[in-house]
Amino acid sequence: MKNIILASQSPRRKELLALAGYDFQVITSNVDEVITMEKPDEIAKSLSSQKAEDVFNIIMDRYGNNHIEDYVVIGADTVVSVDGELLGKPKDKEDAVRMIRLIQGRKHQVFTGVTLVSMAEGKPASISFHECTEVDVYPMADEEIASYVNCESVLKTNSDLQTEVHYDWADKAGGYGIQGTFARYIKGINGDYYNVVGLPIAHLHQELKNIV
Amino acid sequence: MKNIILASQSPRRKELLALAGYDFQVITSNVDEVITMEKPDEIAKSLSSQKAEDVFNIIMDRYGNNHIEDYVVIGADTVVSVDGELLGKPKDKEDAVRMIRLIQGRKHQVFTGVTLVSMAEGKPASISFHECTEVDVYPMADEEIASYVNCESVLKTNSDLQTEVHYDWADKAGGYGIQGTFARYIKGINGDYYNVVGLPIAHLHQELKNIV
Repeated sequence: MKNIILASQSPRRKELLALAGYDFQVITSNVDEVITMEKPDEIAKSLSSQKAEDVFNIIMDRYGNNHIEDYVVIGADTVVSVDGELLGKPKDKEDAVRMIRLIQGRKHQVFTGVTLVSMAEGKPASISFHECTEVDVYPMADEEIASYVNCESVLKTNSDLQTEVHYDWADKAGGYGIQGTFARYIKGINGDYYNVVGLPIAHLHQELKNIV
Repeated sequence: MKNIILASQSPRRKELLALAGYDFQVITSNVDEVITMEKPDEIAKSLSSQKAEDVFNIIMDRYGNNHIEDYVVIGADTVVSVDGELLGKPKDKEDAVRMIRLIQGRKHQVFTGVTLVSMAEGKPASISFHECTEVDVYPMADEEIASYVNCESVLKTNSDLQTEVHYDWADKAGGYGIQGTFARYIKGINGDYYNVVGLPIAHLHQELKNIV
């Protein structure tokens, strides 16, 4: 049984990997992600592989060659594509409005690339795959878009004395979260739901069965 | 703004209606559900309408004709269909194994019927609709099925002194929950994810916009 390392700080990816029944640790990469590809599936796979390989090297440095056989690292990256245009995380509220205007009333694609790195026959070996989920969004009036992007949720910080305002769109590619209040605008999807949340856990489980 | 009444005790439906941003009360029906239809979409709609109409009558009795204009009642019912066979909630662990053997390695359909009852032009009026979501499940080995159906989660009861053992499949049509550990076997879906959980909140939101 290998130790699973998740190379992602995303709270949603942590939740999903736990939901799928895995025990794991989180070690994050500080690599400067470089986009060298053009197609969204290739970009997502390439970014997932940069993160996973960087963390695999960190583990190799930390635990040495004798123990590296005991580890498998999972990297993941999610990108949203609408009419060939890639949407990342919104820069600000105006940018979130722009993105939601682009995706409302039609279908777009969400790509998550996943890379697993572990030792095979004495050498580091990578497996990369992606899942694409098509998401169909109901038409939204301007007031509905404004109401979504302005909705603040208040997070308590650790001290319990300070609070922090959080916007649902703030940390999400495409400017929406399928698992939050935006759910009421999601007409339907074609593909893996959890791929849209950030990690295609069913496909990942099939791959992990062969390694772990 | 009408008061929304959910005619369902299902904790999942309560969560979903709250997720969609609605305030509501729960009043449940004690009606003996009668299946008179044959097709799964008609059965789901018919059962949802029996629940919603029963609760609408309860409210009419309780608050009288003067106030009934202020209410809209939502009823819902979910059925699973595989190769034309309808799957309800498993009777016991063996029945859950039988159902999961039927659905693994292939596609099945989940139908949720929804009925809204409110007053229109001085008379009770119903709107019923359904959503169908196709769910594709990875092939599962017998050990994987056994591991899922035997997995116990311990629920704390209110007193905190007594605990209760709960099985994930126990209260779910088709013998699985898409939102729990079974997620790792869900290859993909075609349609509304929340429809599989028990309430098609996006379609429901479109209908409620015209009434509430």
